[in-house]
Formats: sequence, structure tokens, C-alpha cells
Amino acid sequence: MFDSQLPTVPNLTTAHTGPLLRFEQTLLDRSAEIEAWFRKQFHRTPAPFYCSVDLRNAGYKLAPVDTNLFPAGFNNLNPAFEPLSVHALQSAFERLMPSACNVVLVPENHTRNLYYLEAVATLRDLILKAGYKVRIGSIIPGMVESQTFELPSGKKLLLEPLKREDDCVFLEGFKPCLVLLHNDLSGGRPDILEGLKQPVVPHPKLGWSDRLKTQHFALYKEVAEDFTEHFGIDPWLVNPLFRNCGEINFAKREGEECLASNVELLLEDIKKKYAEYGVTDEPFVIIKADAGTYGMGIMSVKSVDEVRNMNRDTRKKMSSMKEGKENTGVILQEGVYTFEHWRDAAPGSADMTAEPVVYMIDHYVVGGFYRVHGGRSNTENLNAPGAQFRQLAFNNACNCPEPAAAPDAEPNKFYAYGVVARLALLAAARETVAVLSSDAQ
Amino acid sequence: MFDSQLPTVPNLTTAHTGPLLRFEQTLLDRSAEIEAWFRKQFHRTPAPFYCSVDLRNAGYKLAPVDTNLFPAGFNNLNPAFEPLSVHALQSAFERLMPSACNVVLVPENHTRNLYYLEAVATLRDLILKAGYKVRIGSIIPGMVESQTFELPSGKKLLLEPLKREDDCVFLEGFKPCLVLLHNDLSGGRPDILEGLKQPVVPHPKLGWSDRLKTQHFALYKEVAEDFTEHFGIDPWLVNPLFRNCGEINFAKREGEECLASNVELLLEDIKKKYAEYGVTDEPFVIIKADAGTYGMGIMSVKSVDEVRNMNRDTRKKMSSMKEGKENTGVILQEGVYTFEHWRDAAPGSADMTAEPVVYMIDHYVVGGFYRVHGGRSNTENLNAPGAQFRQLAFNNACNCPEPAAAPDAEPNKFYAYGVVARLALLAAARETVAVLSSDAQ
Repeated sequence: MFDSQLPTVPNLTTAHTGPLLRFEQTLLDRSAEIEAWFRKQFHRTPAPFYCSVDLRNAGYKLAPVDTNLFPAGFNNLNPAFEPLSVHALQSAFERLMPSACNVVLVPENHTRNLYYLEAVATLRDLILKAGYKVRIGSIIPGMVESQTFELPSGKKLLLEPLKREDDCVFLEGFKPCLVLLHNDLSGGRPDILEGLKQPVVPHPKLGWSDRLKTQHFALYKEVAEDFTEHFGIDPWLVNPLFRNCGEINFAKREGEECLASNVELLLEDIKKKYAEYGVTDEPFVIIKADAGTYGMGIMSVKSVDEVRNMNRDTRKKMSSMKEGKENTGVILQEGVYTFEHWRDAAPGSADMTAEPVVYMIDHYVVGGFYRVHGGRSNTENLNAPGAQFRQLAFNNACNCPEPAAAPDAEPNKFYAYGVVARLALLAAARETVAVLSSDAQ
Repeated sequence: MFDSQLPTVPNLTTAHTGPLLRFEQTLLDRSAEIEAWFRKQFHRTPAPFYCSVDLRNAGYKLAPVDTNLFPAGFNNLNPAFEPLSVHALQSAFERLMPSACNVVLVPENHTRNLYYLEAVATLRDLILKAGYKVRIGSIIPGMVESQTFELPSGKKLLLEPLKREDDCVFLEGFKPCLVLLHNDLSGGRPDILEGLKQPVVPHPKLGWSDRLKTQHFALYKEVAEDFTEHFGIDPWLVNPLFRNCGEINFAKREGEECLASNVELLLEDIKKKYAEYGVTDEPFVIIKADAGTYGMGIMSVKSVDEVRNMNRDTRKKMSSMKEGKENTGVILQEGVYTFEHWRDAAPGSADMTAEPVVYMIDHYVVGGFYRVHGGRSNTENLNAPGAQFRQLAFNNACNCPEPAAAPDAEPNKFYAYGVVARLALLAAARETVAVLSSDAQ
């Protein structure tokens, strides 16, 4: 169960840690009130079934930059915290349906990515340990036969075609009472999941066919303001500034002027905050597809000229998203430096950039990992698998602050990750309410 | 957070493991149904706030022998599973009172036992990490001033006198909205906790001033029968046979004939089950004070003559209980051999007898430890602190069975502990309902 070779923690290498230290001290001093605040919020607005949040830690600020409602890295969590995920799954399922139940897990359609299938197998095993019968129901178009995959871990994964009769889905010999969606529906909402009698969790309207980052971050801004006002903190410490434009067509160069002027305004706003906190780093802006995921359709710019002078390749890159969909809207977000670094133990190892990813089930933090990249700088998106990319499991569960230790001591740093990640989780909870109560189908 | 020097697991040294292996295999094969069964049961009858269960593992049977509603060994749990206790406390408190809340923890009155105070400090810190403000309110008669204790761990514990105004208790400057009782009330129910507006959890009627082991084990028998019938298992594999007599006065030798005849009958019943399973061990019976705790008022007998020929010292020992109370009733319980052994790594170390103790908060198993004793045999009660007594934290959370591993592989053995302990927890839940709905004050 325990791994004595657990990695240690990345170093935070920046001189500007004053604001964050004060923030961490506040979290520590007032943790009981903070937990009470979260309890009240999640009692009012139930948390999504599961969620992962990418954070960036600049030392002077700690902010979420992406909130994923179909987290695909359960296999990257520390196995030592498995019991925590099992508990949290039990809570989540009990809230949804107190009676006994079979679960069908609907994964993404890309079966060639064995690492993704590892994540599905891990999630399946966790659900099994939580005491639910679970099988995998695939919605790959045209799939008629079951298929078993042998995974690098030695596990096996059986994908079975999901079938439908009237308003119920099923697998051969298996009637689920709940559909657990683990497909972000970038390609659109499939008919087989529409109008089912069985609950589909998360709701298909929370897939990337409907979701927009601008909506999420508008709600995150509200959550961050509620929280920081309550605890007397500058919201900027946890909130990345952002702006959005309307429709954009990169290929046809439509909407580009709006993009440029908003980048300019955003850079100005960041400069002001940097000046206020004495930060001497160069401001930058991240331009991301509003409905995008998988690290596609993302660029980082430090000046408006980079927008005005985009070349053909960049336009093409910004246009294309997962499942071949076209990018028609972007979010402009304050770039947050990541000043966390990781260096392997071997002598002569190079510094790698690291960013924390926090995992939650229901309203419980269940662990996380660092995305570590040797080939990317501290202003770039690190969600770019490749030879120099790795995931490093947290050796801390993020829910055990140590009041007696320094505010930036390991358990307290992880507690801060957990707090900020849960702010994003709460934004996702409010987003769920907004999406499900909207008329848009 | 992790301890690379974690102990390994005691050895089970007996040839008669067939019945238990089949039992463990059943648990493994049907874990989803088992968890569903528990969910249904605890939905119907909510679990006590916390609970620890002493188990005995004879290889051919695995049974609870004591169920404690005021578990005092949180400091003996593996710190690696702290996040699990924090989760479980959050669930437990959220069920009791969703709104924000201050908690006053009412401990036992014996302040000279620093190890007990360590347990209180650990529980306090867990509650704090769960996000509740918590202080310790002592009900030591005559205590008027607060007192700080320095504990062996380096922690400090502040005991404050619990005060009462009208129907509310409070500490100086601290108004609790919940009283968490951690005092088994062996000495009787104190007036200060009667008729309070604030909820007292667990209810004072669940202290040893009102509780009887015979009631608990009668309910446990029902639970064990429900469970084993549902899953096609012989109830004896998890249920220690028992009998009781009416009033007994050891000093005056009253009720002794009843005791002797019941011991005889019980030994006969055990013999029959041993014969059925080919067990060649010698049957024995444990005689325990019906309202007793702290390992007091307990004896182990292998023949009815040992009851008939009790000497003066034994009578005296069986008469006296915690807080100087007199023992007026006993439970006669099938003795369960413990065939778990522990041997230190150092060469030449002697074999020590071990028994598992499982800890639960709400309906979640949160870990446990082995009681290890070098000076006691496998038919004796091991809850007898002394030079050769130790507690060895589980290195497993008991909620992660591994279907791919052997039924007696470590995670599966721990899962079996967790299942049997939860059967006792369910009996305690039913006992709570029975006690609270009875008219007896």
C-alpha cells in the first residue's frame, strides 16, 4: 500500500512569496471557518460528481486555470490515497441514490490512448471498491462487439457497446441504474444518452459540446469574490483576470481586432496588479478556445503584436480543436507564471516546470499530481504529453493542514491547493445549476 | 506523511483456515452486494458517531468480542490514514448539523493517563482539520480552573471546566452547538449533560451506566444472522455464541449455580461447532461484566469446575469494575482463540499474541491497529496494558479489497476485518435505537 520511494515536492523558486504566504497564513488561521464556508456553499449548491482543477502557483498568486468535469488522471493519483477516493465515491453515490445500484461508465471514444484506458480502469476499480457493480459502456459509433484491452499496468479493460431500448440504456446482461459519464462530448451530445430514464451524471449538457470556459470563469470570479470578501483577501490572489470577445474565425481573420484590443486591455490590467505587488515579471495573456480541451487551441502572448502578426500555422493551430471541431470563440485569461520546479534526484538533472492538478470527488479533495514538463517554460501550458512530460503524484491528501507548521510547510501548501481547487469546484457547481436551468438544448 | 518503517502484518498461524478462506472468498466475490447491503442497513439505522471493535481471528472464525462506543485509540491509528478520518468526520458532522458549528469534546475524567489524553488531543486535531472549532470541556467534579497538559508527543491539551446555564453548556468564551461525548459514563450519567438543548453525541444513555453487553450481543446475533443468511454463510463464522444469567453477586456467591450451568451448556455448544469444523482446540468461555469496560471483570474458563472453584481473589476481581462500581451481571461468551502472532524483527524476539481493533467514524472504516501482547496467551483478553503490551497501526485502510489477489492476501484480510467490524457497528446502531426508544432513564 505504501511506497517508500515517494517523490518529494517541487520547489517554489521565486522571491515574490509575500502575498501568498499571508494568504496561506489566513487559510491556516481560519481553516475551521473556511471549511464551514465550503460546507454551507456545497450544501446550497451540490458539487459535481468529480472534477479536476489545474492550478498555477506564481508565489504571489495561486489560481485555477482549467476546471475539468471529466477528470482522466485517476491512475496518476497516489495509490496510498485510494481509500480516500473510495470514501468519497461512496458519499457521492449515496447522495445520488441510496439504494443498491449498478453503474455503467461511459468513457471517451479514443481507444488508442492506453493511458486514458488506464484511467478508466482505475476509476472502474475504485467504483468497485466503493461497492458498486460497474461495467464499461462504450458509445463508439458503430461498435457492435465487446473488446478487451490489455493495459500497460497489466490490468484488463472490457469495453462493451452501450445499447438502448426505449428510454433505458443497458449492456448485455447488465441493467445499470446510473450512467456515469466520462466522455467530455467534445464531438457533440450523442442521441443514445438523450432523454434517458436513468440519471446521467454529470449531465451531458456539461460536456464541451455545451460548456464554455467564459461562463465557468465568470462564475469563478463571483466565487472568488465571495470567498475573498468573507476572509479579507484580495481576490486577485486566487483569480486570474479574464476577458472575452464574441465570435472569432481564425482562418478568416474575423474578430481579430476585438481580440487584439482585449489582449491590450488585459495586459494593462495585469501590469497594474503587478505594480501594486511589486512583481517584476513580464505580464502575459493566455488565449484559449472557449469550448476547448486536451491542451488544444491554446497560445500564450506577451504583446498585442503577437496577436496582430499571427502566422498561418498559428491560425491553423488556434482553429482546430478536439474531434476536428472548429474553434469559434476564445477566452483571454491572465497568464499565471508557474514558479514550481522539479529536478530529478540524479546528478546533473535539468530543472523542469511543474503545475499542480487537484482531484475531487463530490466536495472532497482526494489527492492530485504535479504535471512536470522539461520542454516547456513557466508561461506555457504544461498539458502537452511528450517525452519530457510526467505526472508526479501528490504525497499529501490536501485536507490535513498543520496549524503548528509554517504557512508554506508541505501540508499547508497542499491545503492551499485544496482550498483554491474547491473554489473552482464551487464555480463548477454553480455552472451546473446555470447550464441545467438554461433553456438551451 | 509516510512512514517507510511501517510494520508488516502479524502472521496467522493455524492449520484451520479453510472455513475463513471460503468466507473471505465470499466477501471478495460479492463485495459490491455486501457494500450495498451495508448502505441499505445504515440508511435505515444510522451508524453511531464513532466506534471501535475488538476482533479475534481464530483462522476458522473471525468475530467481534467487544464494541466500544467511545473509542480511545485514535492516536494509535496510522497517521497516513488521517485524511480518511477527516473525511469521515466531515460526513458524520454534516449529517448531524449541516450548518457551521463549534464542538465541545467531553473526555473521560481520568487525567493521569497521558496516553488517554493523547487520544483526546488526536481526536481534537482531527475535528479541527475537518473544519470545526473544538475545545475540551471536562466534567471532572469540582474542576473550576482550566488546566494545560503537556503530552508525550509534544502536543498540549487544554482542559476547561464545562459550565451550564439553563439548558445549555458552554466554556468560557465558547458556545458549542454540539457536545461530542468521549466519556463512557461508567460512573453514571452526570446532571450537567441531562436535558440539554444542544445535541449530545453519542447520547449519554449509550454510556456504560446504561449499556449492557448482553443487549449488544443479542442484537449482534440478529445482525450476523441477517448478513450470513443473505450471503449463504454459517453465522457461527462471525458470531461468538453467548449466554447470560440474571443477577449475580460474586462476593456473596449468589447466582453461581446459574453461571456454572450456563458455562456448561455453552462449552457443549462450542464443542459441537468445533466437531463440525474439525477444530481440535479446547473450547473456552469468557465471563465478562455485562456493563464493564477497560478490561476489568473478565475471566477465561475451560471447564465448569473453574467457575465452581473460584477463589476469593478471583471473586474480588470479578466483582470490581471501573469507577469502583460493583459487577452485578455477566455475559458468558464463546471464547475465540486469536491465532494472529507478531514477532519483532530483532533476532531472537519472542512470539507475541495479536488481535485486531477496527476503528470507524459514521459508517466508514478509518483504520485500526493490532493489540500485541507478549505476556498473554491466545485465550486471554489482550486489552491489558503493561510492559509487554503494544499497539501496532494497520498499514491498510480496510476498504480496498483486491479481487485479483488471494482471499487471505493483505488487503482482503483487512477488508474482512472491516466487514465483520461493521456488522458489530450495525448492531451498535440498532442498540442505539433500542436504548433511545426505551423508557428506562
